[in-house]
Amino acid sequence: MVKGLNLATDILGKVNLGDMAFLELKDRLPSPQESVVFNALLVALVEHGITPSALASRLTYLGAPESLQGAVAAGLLGVGSLYLGTVEGSARMLQQASPDASPATELRVIARAIVHDYATRKASIPGLGHPLHKREDPRTPRLFAIAAENGLSGRHVQLMQLIADEFKLRHGRPIPINATGAIGALASELDLPWQVCRGLGVMSRAIGLTGHLLEEMRQPMAQEIWDRVDAEATEHLSRNMEVDSD
Amino acid sequence: MVKGLNLATDILGKVNLGDMAFLELKDRLPSPQESVVFNALLVALVEHGITPSALASRLTYLGAPESLQGAVAAGLLGVGSLYLGTVEGSARMLQQASPDASPATELRVIARAIVHDYATRKASIPGLGHPLHKREDPRTPRLFAIAAENGLSGRHVQLMQLIADEFKLRHGRPIPINATGAIGALASELDLPWQVCRGLGVMSRAIGLTGHLLEEMRQPMAQEIWDRVDAEATEHLSRNMEVDSD
Amino acid sequence: MVKGLNLATDILGKVNLGDMAFLELKDRLPSPQESVVFNALLVALVEHGITPSALASRLTYLGAPESLQGAVAAGLLGVGSLYLGTVEGSARMLQQASPDASPATELRVIARAIVHDYATRKASIPGLGHPLHKREDPRTPRLFAIAAENGLSGRHVQLMQLIADEFKLRHGRPIPINATGAIGALASELDLPWQVCRGLGVMSRAIGLTGHLLEEMRQPMAQEIWDRVDAEATEHLSRNMEVDSD
Amino acid sequence: MVKGLNLATDILGKVNLGDMAFLELKDRLPSPQESVVFNALLVALVEHGITPSALASRLTYLGAPESLQGAVAAGLLGVGSLYLGTVEGSARMLQQASPDASPATELRVIARAIVHDYATRKASIPGLGHPLHKREDPRTPRLFAIAAENGLSGRHVQLMQLIADEFKLRHGRPIPINATGAIGALASELDLPWQVCRGLGVMSRAIGLTGHLLEEMRQPMAQEIWDRVDAEATEHLSRNMEVDSD
Repeated sequence: MVKGLNLATDILGKVNLGDMAFLELKDRLPSPQESVVFNALLVALVEHGITPSALASRLTYLGAPESLQGAVAAGLLGVGSLYLGTVEGSARMLQQASPDASPATELRVIARAIVHDYATRKASIPGLGHPLHKREDPRTPRLFAIAAENGLSGRHVQLMQLIADEFKLRHGRPIPINATGAIGALASELDLPWQVCRGLGVMSRAIGLTGHLLEEMRQPMAQEIWDRVDAEATEHLSRNMEVDSD
Repeated sequence: MVKGLNLATDILGKVNLGDMAFLELKDRLPSPQESVVFNALLVALVEHGITPSALASRLTYLGAPESLQGAVAAGLLGVGSLYLGTVEGSARMLQQASPDASPATELRVIARAIVHDYATRKASIPGLGHPLHKREDPRTPRLFAIAAENGLSGRHVQLMQLIADEFKLRHGRPIPINATGAIGALASELDLPWQVCRGLGVMSRAIGLTGHLLEEMRQPMAQEIWDRVDAEATEHLSRNMEVDSD
Repeated sequence: MVKGLNLATDILGKVNLGDMAFLELKDRLPSPQESVVFNALLVALVEHGITPSALASRLTYLGAPESLQGAVAAGLLGVGSLYLGTVEGSARMLQQASPDASPATELRVIARAIVHDYATRKASIPGLGHPLHKREDPRTPRLFAIAAENGLSGRHVQLMQLIADEFKLRHGRPIPINATGAIGALASELDLPWQVCRGLGVMSRAIGLTGHLLEEMRQPMAQEIWDRVDAEATEHLSRNMEVDSD
Repeated sequence: MVKGLNLATDILGKVNLGDMAFLELKDRLPSPQESVVFNALLVALVEHGITPSALASRLTYLGAPESLQGAVAAGLLGVGSLYLGTVEGSARMLQQASPDASPATELRVIARAIVHDYATRKASIPGLGHPLHKREDPRTPRLFAIAAENGLSGRHVQLMQLIADEFKLRHGRPIPINATGAIGALASELDLPWQVCRGLGVMSRAIGLTGHLLEEMRQPMAQEIWDRVDAEATEHLSRNMEVDSD
C-alpha cells in the first residue's frame, strides 16, 4: 500500500514515474493535465550537460567504483542554492507573495514591489537571467505553453512574467525568465510548497547523474580531467618555486 | 539538445519522467511497450515505507534543514549491496549467464548450475527470498505480467523463474522471487547493463526520499526516534555503571 | 611537500593530527600554546554519543556495508545549521562584531547591542543555552581555562561571556555558554574565519562517526532501531485502517 | 563521559586529536609510542594535493556554498576501493595471513604464497607500486622508521617488506611499498581491524578536504575547471555535429 493505493493492482503498469512522484508529494495521483505539466517540469531538470554536479559524480566514481550510490549522492550534494536551488527561490518568492489571495488587478503592483525590494537589497531575483540565453531561455515559453494548454497557467505564472516586465521597466534592459523560474512558477500552480521545490531538482538530477555515470563507464573523462588539473597545478607550483629559489 | 533530441520541441510535454530516464540510459526513447515496463520497474522501487534509508534522510534533515539535497543524499547512501543493491545482483547473475546466447533447451541447465554454484559457496541467490512474503512477493507476478503483456518476457525472466524452481528442487522448500529479482530480470530484458542497475534504485529512491522529507516537515518523527534511542542508551549506560560500582 | 613543509622529514613523527589540521587551515604549524587550544577545541567535538548524525551513519552502514566512506558521509551531512553548525554561528557573531578593532571599554556595549538585536528578531543567540545543562555546560569553563592558561583568552572570549551576562540582565534568567559557543570563541581567538568553522565539527565528527561504525560492526543497533520504528509505524497504520473500516 | 573518561577533566587540554581518534577506535588512550605512530599514520593521509576527491569537494561547494558539510561529504565519497581504500586492502591481506600466529621462520613462506596467489589471479597486490615513485615512495621508509623507533615494527611490517621482496624475485623488477601499504602495516601493528582501516583515510581526508574548501573560498578554481571542461565538450560536440551535417 502506498498512500492508500495498492502498489501491485492500482499503480504498477498504470502510473508513470512522474505521476508516482506526484503521488509521493501530493498524496493523490495527478489529473491528466497535471500529469503532463508535472512530468514536463521534472523532465526539464534531468539533464543540463557537463555541470559541476556531473563532474563531481564522475570524479567520485573514479575513486569508488564499488559505490554507484555514492557517486550519484556526491553529484546531488551540489544541487544547492546556486543552481537548481533557484527553483526553490522562485517558488518561494511567488508563494510568499500569495497572488491567489489577492484580486487580479493587484498582480502588477505585487510584481513592482518585489522588483523594488530586490533592487534595494542589491539581490538578484531568483528565476531571472541566464549566462548564455541573454534574450530568452527556449525552455521557458515551451513550459508556459504546456501549462496554458493544460489549464494550469494561473496567477503564479502571470506574476513571474510581470516580475520580468517590471525588471525591464526599472532597469531599462530585458531579462529572460530562465527554466528554473518557469519551473518554480509551475510548481506553484500545482500547489507544491516551496520548501520541497529543491527536491524537484534532486529527483530529476538523480536520473541525469545515473546517465552520466553510465557514460563515464563507457567513455571515461574523470581521469583526464584530473590529469590536466594536476599537471597545471604542478606546473604552476614549479614556476612559483623557481621564483622562490631566486 | 539531449541525446540528439531538442529538449523544448521534442521532449517537453511529450515525454514522461520514466521515458526521460530511459533516454538517459539507452540514448533513445522507449517504444510504448518498453515505456510501460520501464516505468513499472522504476515505480516499484520508489516507496518501501520506513526503511533505514528513509530514517537516515529524516535524521539528517533534523540537523541540517538548510540542505534538502544533503538529506536525500544521506538516504541514497544506504542504497547499497544489501537492499536495493540486489537489483544489481540479480541482473548480474542473469546477464553473466548470457541466456540469449544459448539455445532454448539449455535454460534449465543454466539455472541448475547457478543454484549449485551458490549452494556450494553457501551464498544466497540475489533476487530470491523475502523476510515477510514467505510464499510470494505480490509485486513479482504483477511485474512479470506487465512484461508479458508488453512482449518483454523473454529468456531472462524465464531463467529467473527456473532458478527459483531449481532452488525448490534442491533445497526442498519453495522460495519467492522478490521484487528486486523481478526488476533485475526486467532490466535485463530491456538490455540495461547490470553495472548501472543499482542506479535504478537510486533514481527511484531519490523520489521516495523527497516524499519522506516533505512528510517529515509536516509530521516529524526524527526527533522522537532520537529521544527514544538516546533515553534507552542512557538507561542502559546507567545500569552498567551501577554494576560497575558494585 | 605540504604548505611548504616536507611531509616525510618535517611533518611525519613530529606533528600530531590536530596540528596537521591547523597547518591545513592556517598555512603554518601552531605554537605549543595554539596546539593545546586547537586540539582541545577539536577533541571536544569528536564524540557526542548517540546523535541523529551517529544514527544516520549506522543506518546507512546497515544497507551499504561495502562503503564505510558512504556511512561516514551520511552522518556528516547532518552536521548542519542546527547542531554543530552553531560553532559557525557563534564565531560569525563574534567576528562580525570585530571586538579587536574597538577599545576595551566598549565590549559590554557591543554585547548589549547583540542581545538586543537577537531579542528584537526573536532569534536565539548561537552558543547560548543547552537542553540538559541548564546552569552550566561543564566543557565550557574547562575550554576557557585551557585558553587562559595558554594566553589565548582574549576579547572574543570576553565578548562571549559578556553576551551571556547581558542575556541574564535582559531576560532575568541565567543561560549557560554551551560547548559550541566556547569553541566559536576559541576559534575566533585563533583567527580562524567563521566561514570555515562548520568544518571544525565536520573534521572532528568524521573521527567520532568512524568510531560509531566500528562499534556498529561489533554491537549492531541499526537493525533493531529499524525494526522498532517499523513495528510501531505498522501498528499505527493498522489502527488507522481499523478506524477507516468502521 | 567518553569511553569511561571524563571529557572535561581527563581529556580536554591533555589529549591531542590523533589520540582522541585512537580512543574512539581502541577504547583506551595510546601509550606515548603508540601515539607517535598512530598520529604519523593519520597525518600521512591528510593531504595528497589536487585529487579527484578534492576536485569533487570544490565543485560541490560551487553549487551549494550553504553546506560546507555537503562539500566535504562529496569529497569523502571518493575515498573508495581505488585510492585510500588500499589501506584497507593491505591491512586485510596482512591480517588474514595472521603472521603473529606463526613462528618467525615462516614469514617468507607466507609472503611467497601471497605473491603467488595474486599473480595467479592476475590481481595487483594492495600497498605495492606507485604511479610516480617508481623506486621508492619517500613516505614509506619514514613511516617504517617511526614505527621502529617506537618499538612498533613487528611481524606485519616485516611481512609487508617480504611481500615486496618476493614480488621482485618472481617478477624480476623491484616495486616500492607505497604509503598506503606502509599505513596498512602500521595499522596492523596497532591491532586495528582491517574492516575499519578505510576509516583512517576518511578521518584524515575530512581534514584535508576542509583545508581545500577554505582555499577554494579564497582562491577559487572550480568555476574555471567547469568552464574549461564545458568549453571543450561544446567544441567537441560542434565538431561532431559538423560531421553529422555532411
